[in-house]
Amino acid sequence: MLRPVVPRLRSHTLLSYATRTKLRQQQQQQQLLPRYSRNYASSSASGAVFNWQDPLASNTLLTDEELAIADTAERYCQERLLPRVLLPPPRIEAYRDENYDREILSEMGELGLLGANLQGYGCAGASTVAAGLITRAVERVDSGYRSGMSVQSSLVMGGIHEFGTTEQKEKFLEPMARGKLLGAFGLTEPNHGSDPGSMETTARQHPTKSGYFLLSGSKTWITNSPIADVLMVWAKLAETGKIRGFLVERKDCPPGTLETPPIKNKNGLRASITGMIQLDNCPVPAANMFPDVEGLRGPFSCLNSARYGISLGVMGALEDCISRARTYALERRQFKNNPLAKYQLVQKKLADAATDAAYGTLAAIQVGRLKDEGKATPEMISMIKRQNCDRALHNARVLQEIFGGNAVSDEYGIGRHVANLFVTQTYEGQSDIHSLILGRAITGVQAFA
Amino acid sequence: MLRPVVPRLRSHTLLSYATRTKLRQQQQQQQLLPRYSRNYASSSASGAVFNWQDPLASNTLLTDEELAIADTAERYCQERLLPRVLLPPPRIEAYRDENYDREILSEMGELGLLGANLQGYGCAGASTVAAGLITRAVERVDSGYRSGMSVQSSLVMGGIHEFGTTEQKEKFLEPMARGKLLGAFGLTEPNHGSDPGSMETTARQHPTKSGYFLLSGSKTWITNSPIADVLMVWAKLAETGKIRGFLVERKDCPPGTLETPPIKNKNGLRASITGMIQLDNCPVPAANMFPDVEGLRGPFSCLNSARYGISLGVMGALEDCISRARTYALERRQFKNNPLAKYQLVQKKLADAATDAAYGTLAAIQVGRLKDEGKATPEMISMIKRQNCDRALHNARVLQEIFGGNAVSDEYGIGRHVANLFVTQTYEGQSDIHSLILGRAITGVQAFA
Amino acid sequence: MLRPVVPRLRSHTLLSYATRTKLRQQQQQQQLLPRYSRNYASSSASGAVFNWQDPLASNTLLTDEELAIADTAERYCQERLLPRVLLPPPRIEAYRDENYDREILSEMGELGLLGANLQGYGCAGASTVAAGLITRAVERVDSGYRSGMSVQSSLVMGGIHEFGTTEQKEKFLEPMARGKLLGAFGLTEPNHGSDPGSMETTARQHPTKSGYFLLSGSKTWITNSPIADVLMVWAKLAETGKIRGFLVERKDCPPGTLETPPIKNKNGLRASITGMIQLDNCPVPAANMFPDVEGLRGPFSCLNSARYGISLGVMGALEDCISRARTYALERRQFKNNPLAKYQLVQKKLADAATDAAYGTLAAIQVGRLKDEGKATPEMISMIKRQNCDRALHNARVLQEIFGGNAVSDEYGIGRHVANLFVTQTYEGQSDIHSLILGRAITGVQAFA
Amino acid sequence: MLRPVVPRLRSHTLLSYATRTKLRQQQQQQQLLPRYSRNYASSSASGAVFNWQDPLASNTLLTDEELAIADTAERYCQERLLPRVLLPPPRIEAYRDENYDREILSEMGELGLLGANLQGYGCAGASTVAAGLITRAVERVDSGYRSGMSVQSSLVMGGIHEFGTTEQKEKFLEPMARGKLLGAFGLTEPNHGSDPGSMETTARQHPTKSGYFLLSGSKTWITNSPIADVLMVWAKLAETGKIRGFLVERKDCPPGTLETPPIKNKNGLRASITGMIQLDNCPVPAANMFPDVEGLRGPFSCLNSARYGISLGVMGALEDCISRARTYALERRQFKNNPLAKYQLVQKKLADAATDAAYGTLAAIQVGRLKDEGKATPEMISMIKRQNCDRALHNARVLQEIFGGNAVSDEYGIGRHVANLFVTQTYEGQSDIHSLILGRAITGVQAFA
Repeated sequence: MLRPVVPRLRSHTLLSYATRTKLRQQQQQQQLLPRYSRNYASSSASGAVFNWQDPLASNTLLTDEELAIADTAERYCQERLLPRVLLPPPRIEAYRDENYDREILSEMGELGLLGANLQGYGCAGASTVAAGLITRAVERVDSGYRSGMSVQSSLVMGGIHEFGTTEQKEKFLEPMARGKLLGAFGLTEPNHGSDPGSMETTARQHPTKSGYFLLSGSKTWITNSPIADVLMVWAKLAETGKIRGFLVERKDCPPGTLETPPIKNKNGLRASITGMIQLDNCPVPAANMFPDVEGLRGPFSCLNSARYGISLGVMGALEDCISRARTYALERRQFKNNPLAKYQLVQKKLADAATDAAYGTLAAIQVGRLKDEGKATPEMISMIKRQNCDRALHNARVLQEIFGGNAVSDEYGIGRHVANLFVTQTYEGQSDIHSLILGRAITGVQAFA
Repeated sequence: MLRPVVPRLRSHTLLSYATRTKLRQQQQQQQLLPRYSRNYASSSASGAVFNWQDPLASNTLLTDEELAIADTAERYCQERLLPRVLLPPPRIEAYRDENYDREILSEMGELGLLGANLQGYGCAGASTVAAGLITRAVERVDSGYRSGMSVQSSLVMGGIHEFGTTEQKEKFLEPMARGKLLGAFGLTEPNHGSDPGSMETTARQHPTKSGYFLLSGSKTWITNSPIADVLMVWAKLAETGKIRGFLVERKDCPPGTLETPPIKNKNGLRASITGMIQLDNCPVPAANMFPDVEGLRGPFSCLNSARYGISLGVMGALEDCISRARTYALERRQFKNNPLAKYQLVQKKLADAATDAAYGTLAAIQVGRLKDEGKATPEMISMIKRQNCDRALHNARVLQEIFGGNAVSDEYGIGRHVANLFVTQTYEGQSDIHSLILGRAITGVQAFA
Repeated sequence: MLRPVVPRLRSHTLLSYATRTKLRQQQQQQQLLPRYSRNYASSSASGAVFNWQDPLASNTLLTDEELAIADTAERYCQERLLPRVLLPPPRIEAYRDENYDREILSEMGELGLLGANLQGYGCAGASTVAAGLITRAVERVDSGYRSGMSVQSSLVMGGIHEFGTTEQKEKFLEPMARGKLLGAFGLTEPNHGSDPGSMETTARQHPTKSGYFLLSGSKTWITNSPIADVLMVWAKLAETGKIRGFLVERKDCPPGTLETPPIKNKNGLRASITGMIQLDNCPVPAANMFPDVEGLRGPFSCLNSARYGISLGVMGALEDCISRARTYALERRQFKNNPLAKYQLVQKKLADAATDAAYGTLAAIQVGRLKDEGKATPEMISMIKRQNCDRALHNARVLQEIFGGNAVSDEYGIGRHVANLFVTQTYEGQSDIHSLILGRAITGVQAFA
Repeated sequence: MLRPVVPRLRSHTLLSYATRTKLRQQQQQQQLLPRYSRNYASSSASGAVFNWQDPLASNTLLTDEELAIADTAERYCQERLLPRVLLPPPRIEAYRDENYDREILSEMGELGLLGANLQGYGCAGASTVAAGLITRAVERVDSGYRSGMSVQSSLVMGGIHEFGTTEQKEKFLEPMARGKLLGAFGLTEPNHGSDPGSMETTARQHPTKSGYFLLSGSKTWITNSPIADVLMVWAKLAETGKIRGFLVERKDCPPGTLETPPIKNKNGLRASITGMIQLDNCPVPAANMFPDVEGLRGPFSCLNSARYGISLGVMGALEDCISRARTYALERRQFKNNPLAKYQLVQKKLADAATDAAYGTLAAIQVGRLKDEGKATPEMISMIKRQNCDRALHNARVLQEIFGGNAVSDEYGIGRHVANLFVTQTYEGQSDIHSLILGRAITGVQAFA
């Protein structure tokens, strides 16, 4: 069993400043965060210092509790997650072999990293920004790990927390927060991606068993589906044609009514597990239906939270690309023994990437604050999800050029981020779809069709 | 004489909240801020509202005082400045005819808009962000007007405030804050733009007149120089070869020792006045030299403040482009009577621009806060100056495409912003130079030469 | 009167190779083409030479006649046109003052440069590529001059040649080829730019005068309209609602039936003259209507030819930008006395621009050949018009950055090209419209509305 | 054994026009080229037709022989190569499993596709363009297959043909043309990629065995090295320090003197085999050294030919991306049952890509012609290698967005092209290096260090 690197976070009991300071000192002594020890800083006359890892000092906007949570998450991710991505043989390797270690969610649960911004039910009750800092720490390692966590935390736990009955919350949230129960989120269908309103999955009254629905249909590109214990499935109620949400518990599904085959040979997010959900007259008790939410408001609200996490998460992947490219540029020498870092064309790539990372981080923090104050709108989240994913992907690709021929080796890590980030740009609202959401919000005119 | 639109701001006596609220109500009743009445907002379930003019709600980061100052500045600019840019004949038109109305600085002075973030000497003592909001209001009208103001406020007043003797401050700052005395900033030379350290202008001890220096050399692209009363000139001291700063007072220069010919036929910033400074053994009293600052630290510190103002200023120009393009796209109809706003390619342009405006604003506010806390470094300002200028220019150009053939008419205003923004990208550190400043800060290696 | 720089070209009597060779030698001796004498070339082992002014040796694709015509045109343009753009005071300056010298078309006519690809009627009967090389030579000086010529040559002469009766051809083409009679092309209306099919201008049978139509309506952004002798106006026939073409002769219009007010204060193309055409029951003889062509086929065919000319023309403007930027980069020194040309960021800008110029030229030559063989389609011309205008504009803007602060001075010429090229991207099919034309051709699905 | 799909090509005995025509008819009847049967064409008034697969009709520039060779190559590649990339289980799959089928080069050899532009020694003696059309056909399937062929044809066979003694040519070329003998090209070293002049591999006189050299050093990222029979190794002669070329025959190397370990887990080009070359005092007869060529001229000349092939090759990959994206966009329906092809944002992506494919093809054909005439310079090849790789990669990435979430599945093929094209942009001269080669050629100033 995993020994917790920090005392388990409890709801409303975040780390004190003293604890945090002590932790930091320990970390520095133990050099547990090597990325942060390579720090180069240029100081100004006033004594202020430019930190290339946080160029616009976004850390000054964080509370002590948020900093403590971020430290915990970063430490866990660098120590325990990073080594899993590329294991030396004969161990099974997560990315190369598309192998997801289910234990990861348990470990995260033990550390209090799941559903961290939810209140009660064993969740940490931290701020939206704090939860985003956790996703950033995880995605600094690999977007696939972050995806697995986002599904659990934002889509499923978040959805149950917002729309579930008291019974549903009590039954599911605590074990999910501990990583004992795994969730998946079934919205996208083979023929309906950007336009989920046209979904074909249906739920109809069980013809003989009162208080039960029968669900039928297919969902695809569902992160975690092959290993999930509970699947949040959105389906159209046969009677009304309205979309409703159901919590399908695998253990209760009769054989042949639920299949969750994995989808292999992915171009990206290979460290996460993805599959389909195939429902064939699968009986689900009415008690497992969300009571009030109807239409696309339900799934869109879940997506809204997940998209927020992505917007900070991808900044972690981008920052890791910057760090890796910078290290490579300082170590690799060509032409008169100059490090690549001395070349203008290389410096511009780094400057552009650092700028986008700094800007994207500030924007995500701002929207997180607004979210906690009830002032965030879905369009704001469309804006930061779109922009941060687009810029993370773009810059990762440009930074990859610094590695020259060596970029093709997966040991430099950057090609993996590039492949992952393409997927993040595409899922939970493809970039162009968010452009049209924003266009509609700006002009009042819709241009989807 | 100008009737103040609001009671003159005094140092440390900013508008109270009550005053501000009342002013806003008046403005709304009088529809003095038509830009803000075209508001389209989309509301979320929680009642939060997406405002395309401030997509990420940066206003929530501002204090009441800052909001009040911004309102005052916006009101003045829309009411009094905007009509001057394109006057109906037979009036002289600022932009078309490259005619700068010297009265503008007096008006700004009366409203307390000059040197607004300086303490004492009749200055408002407002925050760095507040001063930036003033530049944004001015640049929403025209970058040329903002340039004229930046020179006065940031380069000259800021420099005197930071480096001047008590006597210099007392003599110059108060009349400059009132707009009674005009300043210019002489650093760039015909052969030395990005590399001012190689300047050729010299100051040598007057051979006969004790306590005087003789300045000789040429400065070019000097905003306000033809009309300035006091010119801050940077020159190398003959004895030491070190750069020192001098306050050259036009009224005291013997004939033939100071010429400030205007430079006409500019491609952009035509509403500002630009010229050279030609010094031919011009006698300047030693009392007009800054006492302690030596080398490039002096001019670079001045530029730092001005660059900050530019970074928020250009957001105003970009926002005006968005507003103009959006209005045009809603009003212009082509193909089956659809407004241009309905076309996906148009919506994407608007979405991209609004995103960059929102991100750039947040980044500038963050750096402003850091600046007031003594935590900002020059590299941070390089970052926001470069990025905000680059993105404002890029998006303005893309938005200009929405106007189709009509863009060529200067009455739509957008071509003027495009031409102006190119200059802002270029002056006070051309974009590539800032890339290399950032590259050096990130890698620790310099790549200038 | 202008002394012809070369013997007047007659139809089917193009310059012999001997003449051309001799001319070239003379030019080299006299250094008449200074641009081409600054040649830097790098030679390969085989003795082949890289010429930065024609990187992919497009000249090898030209016939001797085409080279001779290009030489004539380049010589005329550099010697006679270029000096007119920016005259020293007190002369009137074309660009600054928006002053178009009507004599230019007469001079071009004397040299055989107008309608050069048309057969008979005093036209040179040269290839489509040859005519394109003339537009390139003219646009190397200024896009405004090329616009004035394109209207005369492609839109009006081309249209008459293709659609006119024998009488119309005989009456108009010869004096137009000589530049004695000036044309304008009236299609775009104030409310109908990209969608001319919705035009509102009408032609109805004269109620009393047999064999006459009465034309009413407004056309805008019409190059040459204020000075044109004959205006090709497209109008809907009242009886059929079908679009027909009319040749409106100014000298025959009763007072008050035709007005052609100029449009001033343009952002670009200031060296050309632009105006409106306002028709108020203007009587036009039926003999001046094109006999057979109906609908948009007529104007679109004219535009097709003009767009071809633009596609090669803008390459001239781009090449001039490259040449000017290269010269500046070699002469301007910053940081340790290095020429700007030594900086990687500068070299990349030049490399990108030279590549786009080389590619665009090859594509235009290919389409010109296909056009003469009857194998060119409008979509091909959309492709090269869109791409060459987009790339010329983009690269011109990037090259402008090399000039730093000096770019704002109109004496470096590059800002003028940037302003002009924005207009070329917009007129005769805005870039996005051509994207949708291409999209339709590729997919078979239209997406205009 | 493979039954040739067409009669084996012999040198100087290319397919006649009649044969070609007949073949085409057969192909059309048998629908062997399904890609070309999906043809959508829009016709113009003149009867000319726009073909989205060849928008600027580059085929009109090809000879009948070239068309015949292209047809043969396309047919082979679509029929025999394409199915190998993704085999159904339990077959080993080339891309997913990084498995290169050595038989491919034998098949290509039988068809006369190897070294096709070389004269004599069993090579086809076709034009440079013809050889480029073969690379395009192969890369339409997969860049990895093209890489394997390029090494054999351009780098090794081309090098021997240009620099080899008569004995070397007679010994190696004929079996290489038949695909019986496999080659590899060893230039890049672990520490010297863009700057091969600093290589560390050495050749010294054998201390005891006269007429032999001993080679020591490491080469990396060597396509085909693990399976090659003959390795062209560039090494510095110990006596002179000058770079010389050696043909290392695996069968003659004593155990322990030559190792060629494969490099696995690549991000791209997974269908090709890549490895190192490790030489430890490996004895090579002096007869296997190229007699005259010294310095970087040798390897650079080989690279020049290979780069030419890449420039046309990547157009094949891009065209395949366009074709796949277009098909997907026509078949996938979202929002009101509209095909994605109806959306403006999708159409623009297709239009941009088709334009770059058309332009890049024309430029490559032009340089191929110049090459055969002895008029091509290395800079021209830098230009088309850089631009075509850059644009192929950029557009492939943008087209990938059209597939939305489905892009992550490798069955749509586009992600594979994206991953491959990144490598093509990087190898044989990383894009930035070619920028600086061009910059040097344009300005006469070098900026490498």
